[in-house]
Amino acid sequence: MAKKILPLSRVYGLLEPGPVLLVTTARKGHANVMAQSWHCMMEFEPPLVGCLISGRNHSFDALVATRECVLNIPTAKLLDRVVGVGTCSGRRVDKFAKFGLTPKPAAAVGAPLIDECYASLECRVVDTRLMNRYNFFVLEVVKAWIDAAVKEPRTLHHRGRGRFMVAGKTIRTRAKVK
Amino acid sequence: MAKKILPLSRVYGLLEPGPVLLVTTARKGHANVMAQSWHCMMEFEPPLVGCLISGRNHSFDALVATRECVLNIPTAKLLDRVVGVGTCSGRRVDKFAKFGLTPKPAAAVGAPLIDECYASLECRVVDTRLMNRYNFFVLEVVKAWIDAAVKEPRTLHHRGRGRFMVAGKTIRTRAKVK
Repeated sequence: MAKKILPLSRVYGLLEPGPVLLVTTARKGHANVMAQSWHCMMEFEPPLVGCLISGRNHSFDALVATRECVLNIPTAKLLDRVVGVGTCSGRRVDKFAKFGLTPKPAAAVGAPLIDECYASLECRVVDTRLMNRYNFFVLEVVKAWIDAAVKEPRTLHHRGRGRFMVAGKTIRTRAKVK
Repeated sequence: MAKKILPLSRVYGLLEPGPVLLVTTARKGHANVMAQSWHCMMEFEPPLVGCLISGRNHSFDALVATRECVLNIPTAKLLDRVVGVGTCSGRRVDKFAKFGLTPKPAAAVGAPLIDECYASLECRVVDTRLMNRYNFFVLEVVKAWIDAAVKEPRTLHHRGRGRFMVAGKTIRTRAKVK
């Protein structure tokens, strides 16, 4: 998927709606990917993102060791793959190969972009004060990529217990809000 | 709106999709409400929610002083009121009166429920370690209310600059995920 650079000031508009993410990490030559919905914006620019990565996940160790990851945003056509990624562990499986996801080199971090996702955000860990207690990492987005052809992304939003809301239509208001 | 108690174990399914919230506070007999989208789940049960409340907001002072708030979830029919609430300050305006929102007493906290919202989560602040640096509060949901008639809530999801995605249809997968 042809992606171009997205200005960092626009990143919040991708994450604020609450989409399911595919988070990639890489360590010692092995990349991994996990599904994740527990994230929130914490600052506009530079964009900061709070993110839960459970200590039960294989990705946790890689994130702690490398302090880098990529937040990739899938759309509804990837639903089966998102569910697949979310229900097995990278300890036993090469999830890229198993689910037909294509890793591409990132510009600023060691973790890969996922080619099939319409947007990818390269991140570094900048605060771990809540890591031990909550598995909560504060990430800074250092480089952002988007497929500019996708104007109204049909993102996935997990409602719990395997139910996914698919993003509906967008209403433009005249609200003077950021 | 007739709401019933929602088990706390189900709360994450309301917030994980990333809806815009109307956050209420109350201090010295004065209630206030603000619009908010920067939140994320941090634990299933008891439900913990990370939440940004900017120091520029009138609600910040009330939250710091009382350590209580209610997260109310509006649906698309409240869009105009959400935009109104999000673009003026409680320092100068009684937003409940101005926008036709009805405060109802909560069970466990001093901040009010908003009757017109389909769900309301009574919260207490449990961690302020990231408050000074990021305006980030960790909240525990202590009581949850929902209008059980709303099966597929048409929640609002802010895409930035006054654009709101309205929740689309829900797909049920057989994924063994929580």
